[in-house]
Amino acid sequence: MDHDGKRTPLRVTVWGENVHERRDDSVRAIYPDGMHAAIAAGLEELLGDRVRVRIATLQEPEHGLTQDVLDDTDVLTWWGHAAHGEVQDAVVDRVQAAVLGGMGLLVLHSGHESKLFQRLLGTSCSLRWRNDGERELVWTVDPAHPIAAGVPHPIVIEAQEMYGEQFDIPAPDQLVFISSFAGGEVFRGGCSFFRGAGRIFYFSPGDQEYPVYFHPDVRRVLANAALWASPVAPERGAALASEQSPRDWFAR
Amino acid sequence: MDHDGKRTPLRVTVWGENVHERRDDSVRAIYPDGMHAAIAAGLEELLGDRVRVRIATLQEPEHGLTQDVLDDTDVLTWWGHAAHGEVQDAVVDRVQAAVLGGMGLLVLHSGHESKLFQRLLGTSCSLRWRNDGERELVWTVDPAHPIAAGVPHPIVIEAQEMYGEQFDIPAPDQLVFISSFAGGEVFRGGCSFFRGAGRIFYFSPGDQEYPVYFHPDVRRVLANAALWASPVAPERGAALASEQSPRDWFAR
Amino acid sequence: MDHDGKRTPLRVTVWGENVHERRDDSVRAIYPDGMHAAIAAGLEELLGDRVRVRIATLQEPEHGLTQDVLDDTDVLTWWGHAAHGEVQDAVVDRVQAAVLGGMGLLVLHSGHESKLFQRLLGTSCSLRWRNDGERELVWTVDPAHPIAAGVPHPIVIEAQEMYGEQFDIPAPDQLVFISSFAGGEVFRGGCSFFRGAGRIFYFSPGDQEYPVYFHPDVRRVLANAALWASPVAPERGAALASEQSPRDWFAR
Amino acid sequence: MDHDGKRTPLRVTVWGENVHERRDDSVRAIYPDGMHAAIAAGLEELLGDRVRVRIATLQEPEHGLTQDVLDDTDVLTWWGHAAHGEVQDAVVDRVQAAVLGGMGLLVLHSGHESKLFQRLLGTSCSLRWRNDGERELVWTVDPAHPIAAGVPHPIVIEAQEMYGEQFDIPAPDQLVFISSFAGGEVFRGGCSFFRGAGRIFYFSPGDQEYPVYFHPDVRRVLANAALWASPVAPERGAALASEQSPRDWFAR
Repeated sequence: MDHDGKRTPLRVTVWGENVHERRDDSVRAIYPDGMHAAIAAGLEELLGDRVRVRIATLQEPEHGLTQDVLDDTDVLTWWGHAAHGEVQDAVVDRVQAAVLGGMGLLVLHSGHESKLFQRLLGTSCSLRWRNDGERELVWTVDPAHPIAAGVPHPIVIEAQEMYGEQFDIPAPDQLVFISSFAGGEVFRGGCSFFRGAGRIFYFSPGDQEYPVYFHPDVRRVLANAALWASPVAPERGAALASEQSPRDWFAR
Repeated sequence: MDHDGKRTPLRVTVWGENVHERRDDSVRAIYPDGMHAAIAAGLEELLGDRVRVRIATLQEPEHGLTQDVLDDTDVLTWWGHAAHGEVQDAVVDRVQAAVLGGMGLLVLHSGHESKLFQRLLGTSCSLRWRNDGERELVWTVDPAHPIAAGVPHPIVIEAQEMYGEQFDIPAPDQLVFISSFAGGEVFRGGCSFFRGAGRIFYFSPGDQEYPVYFHPDVRRVLANAALWASPVAPERGAALASEQSPRDWFAR
Repeated sequence: MDHDGKRTPLRVTVWGENVHERRDDSVRAIYPDGMHAAIAAGLEELLGDRVRVRIATLQEPEHGLTQDVLDDTDVLTWWGHAAHGEVQDAVVDRVQAAVLGGMGLLVLHSGHESKLFQRLLGTSCSLRWRNDGERELVWTVDPAHPIAAGVPHPIVIEAQEMYGEQFDIPAPDQLVFISSFAGGEVFRGGCSFFRGAGRIFYFSPGDQEYPVYFHPDVRRVLANAALWASPVAPERGAALASEQSPRDWFAR
Repeated sequence: MDHDGKRTPLRVTVWGENVHERRDDSVRAIYPDGMHAAIAAGLEELLGDRVRVRIATLQEPEHGLTQDVLDDTDVLTWWGHAAHGEVQDAVVDRVQAAVLGGMGLLVLHSGHESKLFQRLLGTSCSLRWRNDGERELVWTVDPAHPIAAGVPHPIVIEAQEMYGEQFDIPAPDQLVFISSFAGGEVFRGGCSFFRGAGRIFYFSPGDQEYPVYFHPDVRRVLANAALWASPVAPERGAALASEQSPRDWFAR
C-alpha cells in the first residue's frame, strides 16, 4: 500500500479492440504488436515497478474481462473504434459495475462512442471529426491537476485526427486539457468524471493511423492518469444498492 | 413564444406509474384520481394558461409515450416506484433520446431508481430510506435559482418517507435543495443535471403514502421546475450524432 | 414584469473605461463615440423596447456608479483596460455588493484583470496574450445554454487580440464558449459564474483595436447574456449577512 | 518526495487566532494550550513522521506568517473568529498569493468569515447560526473522496454550534460532507475549492466552546485534508501573471 492509500504495484488492464491492427496494413506498420502493446509499454516505461500491466482484447472469451480479471484490476484503459457493437452487453454491465465500485477507467480516443462510455455518461458522446493528419496542440487548462504534472504546455502532436466540438458529454467534473487543431477546431480532449466510487478520465489523442502512443508527453499523461484514477483502497467494492435504515441506526 | 424563447403554452406530459393508486387503499384514499392527477392539477393551478397538461400512464400502449406524444411535449414528469422493471426498454430509449434532444424532464421521488434516470445519469441512483412518516425540511441552498423562487426556507413537510445519503448520483450540475429528516439524515433532494440539450431536475419529496403533491410549496417547486426545464425553442431536436467535417467547413 | 420573473424593460448600465477612445487615434477611428456607445447600441438594436440602456464612465464622479445608479440597474457591463488601477476601491466594494445582491454582470475582454473581476473570483485572472490581429473562432460547447441561442458555430472574428490559456480563474460554473486563434492557442472565452444572488458572464472578444462590438454575432451574445444575467425579481437585495436563528425559528 | 509527488514530511502551519483561549475561561478549560495546539496534536497523532507541524498565531509579528514561513509551508490551517478585523491586509495578500501559487489551505469553522476566505471566494460567506450545544451529524456525500477515507457515516458530534444554510459561498468544486443539526438545519460543512494552483478545504465543525478538535473522526478529516491539500511538488510557485507570447512561441 502506498502512502496515499493506493495499491502498489498498481494493477492496470489495457483493453484493446485489436481490429485495426489485424486488418489495416497502415496500422500494423505503426503498431506491429497492437496499439494495446504500445499503451502498456508506455505505462511500464514511466511507472516501472509501481505498475503491473495486463492486456485484454475483444477477441478473447468475455473480451478478456471476466469478473476475476476486473476484481484484480485497479485501472482499466479502453481503446475501441471499429467494433463497438461487438462488445457484449453483459461485459459492459460488468465493467460499469466495477467502475461504480471504484475501479478507475481511462477512455481513449475513439472509445468516446463505446457502449461503456455512453453507458457511464448517459449522453451520445458524439463529436465532429476529420482525419487529415493535422497538428494537434493539447493545452493544459488546470495546471495543478495531477494528470498535468510534468506535461508541457502545449503538447505538440504533429499529426492526428481532428476531434471537434460539440462533444455531447455532460459537463466534466474537471476539465484538464483543451485541444486545438490546424483547421481551427477546439475539443475538450482531457476531462474527468466521477461516477459512483470510480474515477474516469477521457483523453482524446490516439488515432490508429498515427504513432501517438509512442509520444513521450502522451505517455506521461496516461501514466499520470493511471495513478490518479486508481482507487483509494478501502473504497473499492460493489456499486451501492438502496438500503432500508431504521431510525437511529447510526447511534448504535 | 414567450420573451425568454420558451413556448407558450408549455406542453407538459405528466407520466404516472399508476400502480399504487389502483392497488393500495391507503394511496387511493389520498389520491383518488391517481398521483398524476394531483401533479397535473398543481401545475394547472399555478401556471394557468401558461401550461397545457396531458397525462400518460404505464398501462397505456407504449406507456402513453409514443414518439408523437414526445414530439408534442416540452417537459415530461416521471413518477414510478413499484413497476420500474415493467417499463419497456424501447420506451426508455425513446425518452432518453428526447431528453438529449432538448425535452425537459422532472424525475420525482422514487423515480430515482427508474431505468430512465439510471440511464441518463450512469450510476445506480441508490440511497438510504425509511418510511416512518417523519417531518422533512427542504432547505434552499441556491436562493437565486429560478426553481427556488417564491419557495419558503425551509419547506416544512409534516410527514414523508426518509431518503438519505449516500445518494449514488454524479455530482449535480446545480444543487438547489437539501432535505433533513426528523431522524437526522440529510439528502440532496433537489438537483439539476444538464444532459445533451435537455434539462433534468430531480425532486425527492412525494411518497405515495402522504399528500405531498397537494402541498402548496411542493406545487410551487414543480411549477418553477417545469418552466425552468422547458427548452429554449430553437434548440429542440434530435440527439447529436457524430459528423465528418471537411477542413474550413465553417468558412463557406 | 416578464413571464420569467424578469423585469421589462431590462435596465442595463454599460460601463466604459473610456481611455483608449480619447487617447488613441486608432481606437477613435473605430469607435468615435466610445466603445461603450457601440456596446449600448448593440443591445438596443437586438432587444429594442425590452431594454433601457444607460452609460457610465470612469471619468464621472464615482465613475458614474453611485448607489442610486446601481439600485436602478439590472445588469452592468464592464469594459476596462488601461486604467484598472484608477477605479476607486469604494466603488469596487459597492459593485461587488450589488452583484452579490443579485445584479447581473457582464465582464468584457480586458476587464478580466479589473479589480472587480479579481475581487469576485479570488484569483489573478491572468492569461497569455498577443495582439497581432489574428482570426478568432468562438466555438459553442454548451449549445443549449440561453447565451448561445441563435449564435453560429463557430463565430468567426477576422481580427482580434489573442487571449490564451492558462487563464487563472476558478472552474466556471458553466463553460459556454471556447475560442481558438490562428496561432493555435485556445481560451475559455465565454463562461459564467454564480456569486451570491448574482450571475456573472465573462466574454473575451472585444479588443479596442478591432470593430468587434459591431460584429452581429458578438452583439447577439451580449444581448443573450444581458437577458440571462438579469435577476429574477424577488431575489434582488443586499448581500447576505450572518444571522442568529433561535431553535425552531422556521416553525413559527 | 512521496510516490504521489507530494513532499514528505508535509510541512503544515497551524494558524490560531488565539483570542478566546486567552480571554474565556470556558475555552481555556477545554483547550489549555490553545485550540491550535489541539489541532496540531491531532495531525501529529495521525500522520506521525509524515508531517512536520509549526504553529503561528495572530499575536506574533506579521501574525507569524512571514514570507519565509509561507515559503516553508505546504498546507496552512486557519482558525479565527473574534478578531478577523485585526488581521493585516498585507498578510491576507501574502497568504492569498501563496494559495494561488500552490499552498494548501484548510479553513476551519468560524474562519468562514475571515478576510482570507472571503478574499479567495469573492462572496460574503455568511450563514445562519445558533450556539445551543446541539448534536451535529456530519454525512459523507462523496464516499470516494480521499478526505472521507476512514471516516464513519455519519460522524456524530454530541455538542456543537449550529451552522445552517444559506451559506453564501460559490458552488464548491467538490461537496464532501453535509451536516445536520438537532434543530433540523443542514449545512454544506465540508467542501473543496480549487483556486489558482491551490487546494482549499473548508470544514465547519470546531466551535471554541466544545472539544471538537479532540474528536477522533474530526482529527481524521483534518489529517486526510492536509494530505489532500498539499501541493504536487513541481506546481508550487508564484501566482500566475499575464504574459505576452509571440506567435509560435511554443514551437521553438
